Amino acid sequence: MKVSIYIAQSLDGYIARPDGGLDWLEHDAGDDDYGYHAFMAGVDVIVMGRGTFEMVASFGGAWPYAVPVVVLSTTLREIPEALTDHAQLMSGAPADVLAALAAQDYGHVYVDGGITAQGFIAAGLVDALIVTTLPILLGQGKPLFGAVPADIHLSLVSCEGFASGVTQVRYNVG
Amino acid sequence: MKVSIYIAQSLDGYIARPDGGLDWLEHDAGDDDYGYHAFMAGVDVIVMGRGTFEMVASFGGAWPYAVPVVVLSTTLREIPEALTDHAQLMSGAPADVLAALAAQDYGHVYVDGGITAQGFIAAGLVDALIVTTLPILLGQGKPLFGAVPADIHLSLVSCEGFASGVTQVRYNVG
Repeated sequence: MKVSIYIAQSLDGYIARPDGGLDWLEHDAGDDDYGYHAFMAGVDVIVMGRGTFEMVASFGGAWPYAVPVVVLSTTLREIPEALTDHAQLMSGAPADVLAALAAQDYGHVYVDGGITAQGFIAAGLVDALIVTTLPILLGQGKPLFGAVPADIHLSLVSCEGFASGVTQVRYNVG
Repeated sequence: MKVSIYIAQSLDGYIARPDGGLDWLEHDAGDDDYGYHAFMAGVDVIVMGRGTFEMVASFGGAWPYAVPVVVLSTTLREIPEALTDHAQLMSGAPADVLAALAAQDYGHVYVDGGITAQGFIAAGLVDALIVTTLPILLGQGKPLFGAVPADIHLSLVSCEGFASGVTQVRYNVG
């Protein structure tokens, strides 16, 4: 089983403005998708927190994911009727969640969202980290990274700059 | 006049541990100096805060800088006797400091240190930003970036990965 994080941040490490705003992500990427579709083509299941799920659901329109989504929440009672074909609820520690997904034969797990990603990183359960950085300083917001119980060492896989000014680094963890 | 920042951070955006510790910066860089000497060869004066100055002074041994150092402090009374040939005290807002340096005919200013760099960035006075990122998550520490009065947009100059796992991005500001 492989656990990956693929996420975008500002240069100062925020994944959203303090109010959750993502307007700053909008930019002219030209023909680049920063490897997103190639990455998603290898993903079997997406794990996200309630915040990210509700944000994605709020966008309306077609559901954006082709693979099942697992929503981690202790407060959400149920997945909205319209999305029950796409998403299921789960709760528990990251290791328990992965054990449940392994039991369902999922091979490659994409962990999305700030708090959720932080929890999996802190638990030492992330294998690959792909961080796409936009050329902007926001000064405040929701941070990508959080506390860890001890230093976490990473192994650089690649570092790439794009014409849009976006950069992307890929690491293996450990 | 040009103002540059050249600084190293952890992947989660810290330039030092909470106690100022820099042990995590030590690594095998091979023959790479991450462009440091080439950068320094074009610098006319270094501006740093009291914290960075006292840390550098505490290292002992030969003074590491070939160009004059300006120490920004409102609390330091004087530069230690042994370093008066290398450093001078100054205080004031970033714009005032730059005006004073321009009056001394300095062309390229290197702003070093976390709080000092944050002040110059927030004041919109930085032209070039070179960030070297080590492949480690510390989880806590002294942050590279701080609050800004409004979004600051950057222009990517280059993005490079090194054999050590270190990456370096260069931006022009604005």
